[in-house]
This record gives sequence, structure tokens and C-alpha cells, in this order.
Amino acid sequence: MKNQSSKSIKDIGEFGLIDRIQKLLPAHSSTEIIIGIGDDTAVVRLDDNRSLLATCDIMVEGTHFRFDYITPYQLGRRAVSINLSDIASMGGKPTYALISLALPEKLSPDDFDELYSGMSDQMADFSAVIIGGNLAQTSENMVIDIFMLGEIEPDKMLTRSGAEPGDRIMVTGELGASAAGLHVLEKYGLSYPERLDHLVQAHLQPEPRIDEGRLIAASGYATSMIDLSDGLGSDLRHILEKSGVGAEIYMEKLPQPEYITEAAQLVSRSTWDIVIKGGEDYELLFTVKPDTPDEIIENISRTTSTPVTEIGRILPEIDGCSIVDSKGDRHPLETKGWDHFDRVLTK
Amino acid sequence: MKNQSSKSIKDIGEFGLIDRIQKLLPAHSSTEIIIGIGDDTAVVRLDDNRSLLATCDIMVEGTHFRFDYITPYQLGRRAVSINLSDIASMGGKPTYALISLALPEKLSPDDFDELYSGMSDQMADFSAVIIGGNLAQTSENMVIDIFMLGEIEPDKMLTRSGAEPGDRIMVTGELGASAAGLHVLEKYGLSYPERLDHLVQAHLQPEPRIDEGRLIAASGYATSMIDLSDGLGSDLRHILEKSGVGAEIYMEKLPQPEYITEAAQLVSRSTWDIVIKGGEDYELLFTVKPDTPDEIIENISRTTSTPVTEIGRILPEIDGCSIVDSKGDRHPLETKGWDHFDRVLTK
Repeated sequence: MKNQSSKSIKDIGEFGLIDRIQKLLPAHSSTEIIIGIGDDTAVVRLDDNRSLLATCDIMVEGTHFRFDYITPYQLGRRAVSINLSDIASMGGKPTYALISLALPEKLSPDDFDELYSGMSDQMADFSAVIIGGNLAQTSENMVIDIFMLGEIEPDKMLTRSGAEPGDRIMVTGELGASAAGLHVLEKYGLSYPERLDHLVQAHLQPEPRIDEGRLIAASGYATSMIDLSDGLGSDLRHILEKSGVGAEIYMEKLPQPEYITEAAQLVSRSTWDIVIKGGEDYELLFTVKPDTPDEIIENISRTTSTPVTEIGRILPEIDGCSIVDSKGDRHPLETKGWDHFDRVLTK
Repeated sequence: MKNQSSKSIKDIGEFGLIDRIQKLLPAHSSTEIIIGIGDDTAVVRLDDNRSLLATCDIMVEGTHFRFDYITPYQLGRRAVSINLSDIASMGGKPTYALISLALPEKLSPDDFDELYSGMSDQMADFSAVIIGGNLAQTSENMVIDIFMLGEIEPDKMLTRSGAEPGDRIMVTGELGASAAGLHVLEKYGLSYPERLDHLVQAHLQPEPRIDEGRLIAASGYATSMIDLSDGLGSDLRHILEKSGVGAEIYMEKLPQPEYITEAAQLVSRSTWDIVIKGGEDYELLFTVKPDTPDEIIENISRTTSTPVTEIGRILPEIDGCSIVDSKGDRHPLETKGWDHFDRVLTK
């Protein structure tokens, strides 16, 4: 017990802390709570036709963003996008947000206006409205915490559970662009090679896949969904755990952004490391039934102008999770991050 | 314009920033939004019988709390109480909360558990449930941001507007206890005189007036309500501005906690300064119609074991806002805080 107490929360990590929270909280018997603690988005029953979605995401200057790279306006848009992405991951429609800000007193009013305008514009792009919030001063780093509400039709809602063996694994957009962009910013600051701009923009201004999520949920063929915040490897694992299944991912099928290999070389990383482990893409990873007509997927892609790529297949749980490379060799997906996989593929 | 840009947000202040936000945000045409930006709690129509209440409050270590005085468990309870109080101020019923925490990595797991247990226990005391949240690391001060949801019957909801000349002004509990307790803590740390403990506890563990707010709203006689977070003077002003009325407050009627004069002397403040300007009491300040039967008020007080005191009367707007002292002399309530009033009464 002594030893236990001398640990810090850093040793326990985010998922360890969430486990502790789940043990601490009383078991609630409310039939109104459809999804509670432990998911990105909480879901509460409103009536037979509507469920309320509620999610929040706290961003700390220094930990999650630095004004060396991002303007206040871009930060405002980005903070809202990250929360919209959580709503998108259920197939939901965003409605309202509350904005909590802890602001260093040295912040200029112009920067404050820009930050708020970015948030407001990004909300407006998705027909959602800022209805309240709270302002506090801090002596140090800025904190932005957004509470986003949304709605979903209960029969259309997608969660991390629901994937079954045989289901096809799909992803919107491209993988690794945001992580590559961040690495480029960290190495070059804003003086990065211009041809890498799409990677940097993918990091600074991710597009939440609200319309895509709505169409996927409405298709009737999707079985599970999550947004890619922690990286393909980590987020796929959430689906596999919650659904009680395994998976195989086809390495050659993973949609890569242009110039990612060049960017990876410039920042001394492996391309696969960035594509598979790189977080913050805010794309949607989802599974569809084996018999899903190709037109369904093509229609989602055509309607939204967002590529949708089939990247793998759900397997029985006993088969674990592996990535199949171009030679047909299988590499295990370690559950504790990608350390082992890295060593295999980094060179 | 140059001059404008060289200001910091500190010069503009919280209310100035809220004005800027209201100008920045697009005018929304949604009939679903009953109360938006600018109030403590946002209100959205759910259906004919229910409105959704949504509020948040961000607390920053160093600005809003210090672990010198408050334990993690107490802090958890207090953070939830402050948000519950916003729900109480509308006459609402709390339902769910999401908890955002930015945690310094040195925090011990035991302290984390205590913090979360405090939040969970305080929610449970009011039959409300934590349904989600977010965890982030920060290199510096802890940040606690709670997003509280509640419900209210639309025909019972009380806001800051609605007070009319002749209405009687009421307050639950006592005034100034929390501010006195904070001053005592700042002077003595935890080694304060034991007889002042009720003041310290009023600061550390305020009781949100949920049941009182429900009964006041259900009575049918109340016309406006607010919770006392910034102090009687400041919060009364919100009611007067939103309702377009004036008021007179009877100084002798203000309910004072025991030993407040002694506490005020010990910390070299005036009693009236603490009672009238002291914030964070989280009592309810409300107005009732002139013909409200005394039994109605007595019943609220008896049912909840919380004193309810009549402290003044609403006047026409042209009469401004004054405090009447024991000699019958009137002192104006300055709209910019209590500076002038202070000078009159401090000695």
C-alpha cells in the first residue's frame, strides 16, 4: 500500500485513471443512461426518438497546443472540431456547446476575439450554436474546455461495440497526415517546405466528419464506429475490445497522404509509424456488414467528397489483431501501444 | 485602435469579455434556445414539459482554490456544489455531469481518488450522476471544469428577469459566511479559532440549495431568482438590470452568521463589507409577489431546515438601489461594485 501511494498519476496513465473512476463511482440504476463513463461521448435517453449526446475535451497550452504554431483563430476552430468529431463518431448531429476558458491575463483582447471567432465559425459550419460558458483567469497556461451536446436517433447510433467477424473495416480520409504535420511543425516551425502544407493543415485544421458520420449511421449497414484521435492502432483496439473480436488490417490498403514518406524521412520517423500510430487525424474508423453493397460506400464518399477506404476485416477474437504486409506476412498488433511493431518495421 | 490592442483581457474584465462574446456570436434564430450566452445557465427546450439546463464552471488552482486549505475530497464536493447552485438558481433539478480535469503529473493516485469521490458523493446527495469527462495532464496548476446538466418544467423556471415593483426580496441561509471563512483561512491557515469553524466550513463546503430552489419555483409566487456567487450587491444588481427595476435593502434584516463581527475584526474588515460584498455563499436570492402568504415562505423554510429571510423590496427602476440603515438613512448601491459604499460604512 505504501508503494502504491508513492506512485503518481503519471505512472497510472489515462486509461488507468478511467478504470479507477469506474470503480469509484456508484453503480447507477438509471435506465436513462445509455452510455456513461468510459466512452468518448455519454448518451442519455431523451424520448423514444432522441438521445442526448454529451462530450467534453480539455486542451492545455503547452500540453496540447503551442502558440508558436497555431493562431488563436485556428485554435478556436480546432478545439471545436475535436469535440464535433466525438459527436460524429456516434453518427450524431451537434447542437449546442458551452465554452470554458482559463485565460492568462496577458492575453490581448484581439487574440481573445480571434479565438472565440474561430470557435463560433466552426460551430456555425455545422449548424451548431454556442449557448454558454465560463471565463476564469489563470496565471499560467491557457486552458480551453469545450462541452458539446448533440442528438442521435437511438436506432441509428453507432458505438465501439457491434463489430462482428466478417465485417469490413473502413476509414474515411487519410491516415497519419496530422501526426506528420505536427512532426514537421516541431522540426521546422512555420518555415516548413511548402509541399508539406497539406500535412500541417491536417494538424492545424482537422475537419470533423459530421456529414460522413450521419450518412454512415443512416446507411443501416454500419456495425461500429470510432473517431481516430489516438491513432489507428490504439483506436481500432477500442473497437475490438468493446466488440469482443479480432481483426486483420491490410498494410497496403492504408490510405496515405501525399509526401508522407518524404515528411517521415525529414523528421527521422518511419512512414508506417506515423500512419498507424499517428493520432489526431479525427477520421472515422468504422465497420460494415460483409454484404454491404459497394454503392453504399461509394455514395457516402461521393456525397461528402471524402474518400472512404476498406482497410481490413473483423476476425473472431481468438485470431487477435494483426497487420498483413505486402508479402503476406502477419505482424501482431501489440495491445500496449506499438512498441514491438515499431521495432519490426521502423527500418 | 492601437491603444485598444495594447490592452490585456485583465483590463477588460469578465463582464467586458462576455459583452465581446455576445457581439462576436452570430444572432441565432433557433426558437429552441430559451436562454443563451450571458446567463449562468443556458436553457434549451426539450419538449412541452421539459427544458434542458446546461452550465459549467472552471476552477483553477491558485486562482480559485489552494490545497493549503482544502482537501481533495472537499474540493471535489465544492466544485460540484458550485455547479449545482447554478441549477438551483433556476429552480431546476440536476441530472448529469461531465468532469474535465487537467491534472499536474505529480498528483498522487490517492488524492485523485479523493477528489473524484468528493465529486461523486456530492452528486449522489442530489440524485445526480457523473456520466463522462475528460482527463489531461498539465505541467502546472490543477484545473477542474464541471459541466452540469439539469431539467426544469418550463412553466416553473425562474430567471433574473421577472421581478416587479412591490415584490419582496428574500434570501436563503446567511450572508457573508463563506467570505468570512476565506479571510479566516487566509489569515490563520487551518489553525483558526475553533468557534469560527462554521464560517470556514461555509467556505469549504457550501450547500447547494437545490431543494429550496425547487420549492421556491414550485410555489407559484416567486418572480425571479439568482444564486449568490459574487455577493449580494453584485448579484442583486443582475436581477435589477434584467428585470428593469430598482430595490431597497434593509440593512438590519440581513441574516448574519454567528461570530461574523469577531471574524471581521480579526481580519481587519468591516462586517458589512463581508455581508454585502462577500461572494461564494451560494445562497438563493429571490423575489416573491407582494401578496405571497407567509405560510408559503415558512413552509419552504420548515421543509428544508434552511432559514428564509425577507431583506428588502423591489422598487421602480427610477428609484435605483439603496440600502437603508438602522437610522433610516439610505446609501446608494453603486453599480460598479461597492467602492463608494465601502467608504461610507467601513468605519
